[in-house]
Amino acid sequence: MTEQRKSPHDLPDVSGLTIGILGGTGDQGKGLARRFALAGHRVLIGSRRAERAQEAADDLGGDLPVRGAENAVAARESDVVIIAVPWDGHRATLESVRAELAGKIVVDCVNPLGFEKGKGMFALPVEEGSAAQQAAALLPDSRVVAAFHHVSAVLLLDPGVDAMDLDVLVLGDDRDATDTVQALAGRIPGMRGVYGGRLHNAHQVEAFTANLISINRRYKAHAGLRVTDV
Amino acid sequence: MTEQRKSPHDLPDVSGLTIGILGGTGDQGKGLARRFALAGHRVLIGSRRAERAQEAADDLGGDLPVRGAENAVAARESDVVIIAVPWDGHRATLESVRAELAGKIVVDCVNPLGFEKGKGMFALPVEEGSAAQQAAALLPDSRVVAAFHHVSAVLLLDPGVDAMDLDVLVLGDDRDATDTVQALAGRIPGMRGVYGGRLHNAHQVEAFTANLISINRRYKAHAGLRVTDV
Repeated sequence: MTEQRKSPHDLPDVSGLTIGILGGTGDQGKGLARRFALAGHRVLIGSRRAERAQEAADDLGGDLPVRGAENAVAARESDVVIIAVPWDGHRATLESVRAELAGKIVVDCVNPLGFEKGKGMFALPVEEGSAAQQAAALLPDSRVVAAFHHVSAVLLLDPGVDAMDLDVLVLGDDRDATDTVQALAGRIPGMRGVYGGRLHNAHQVEAFTANLISINRRYKAHAGLRVTDV
Repeated sequence: MTEQRKSPHDLPDVSGLTIGILGGTGDQGKGLARRFALAGHRVLIGSRRAERAQEAADDLGGDLPVRGAENAVAARESDVVIIAVPWDGHRATLESVRAELAGKIVVDCVNPLGFEKGKGMFALPVEEGSAAQQAAALLPDSRVVAAFHHVSAVLLLDPGVDAMDLDVLVLGDDRDATDTVQALAGRIPGMRGVYGGRLHNAHQVEAFTANLISINRRYKAHAGLRVTDV
């Protein structure tokens, strides 16, 4: 895994950033909180109720630099804020913290998926095109980036897994913001942030999570993607 | 590249199959024709005009078992037929060879993409959901599979490239058909066929080609995808 990789530019040093995770009480949010804290980041788990957020932080063990707070507090006190709420709470959560997110990099990792018996998972239509584009529409004063859609919550939370094995596709229209999020992805062992296109091409990355779920089912795997020749 | 891979089942022996490629005069079709012929398959390049198809076959060099034919002839004489026409010819081509494709495995690798200056590539809306679903709707008597969307035509045609480096996502609702196409992908060195979900989840795989084009541009690469943990 040490083959040479093309790097079109140097990524910024993000080691000192505090990371907020709204919806951090769910498995994916908690898993990302755990990995970023293990990498040395101060992490704030956000939830509608501070006590629930603190419970999630406590679940991760007292040694890690993670604490819980109300969504607005977590957003205000963080440098970069990850949105990891369920799709049906996406719009309301973002509207509730619009002011606190102004000027910040907001990383949307929400996958708008539905399930039907006999059909399985499928992508839900989103008026704005994708969850990430909805976030950009709701947060005109934030720098919205889409990333971390395909990361397995199970692996993130598994203490037996030292390193992940996937590239995180990072999409956005603001180069400094995507560079920062690529660098953040690279803070987690075995993860690499790869630029994945503009925000108007986020839908298919979100929707592809349905395919990964099918792949996981067929192969009894926790599949991820690697981008070759990059 | 010899790490152990999970195989949920054995794939069939497809070494004797004749492969038809409609739209085989374009770069992607020609590239696939070249690689399948190098792997020992008899290949029929199809086009609206037999002479153009034969020219494309001749371009690949006389040593390979490739010949050109009219689309209907190529479809009728092949065991598996790959659809590699431009999106704007997709519907008309399929309607013109519906009878010849009946009962066959039809592999759609068409990416419905548009381009706008300042925006770049993006996915076009398709009434049926995706090119592959359109094919399934137009060809009720065929077994439609979606695959080979992300394969770089440049690499397929490059005589200096001995092996590809990507997994081919194979989608479909017919298990025998997807197994066959996975096995076919595996005939090309460095390629592996990975089941990628049902046909209703083909849109995002087709659309993701727009992201790969962005990635190629940013990293000056010919990017492909690998699926990890499979």
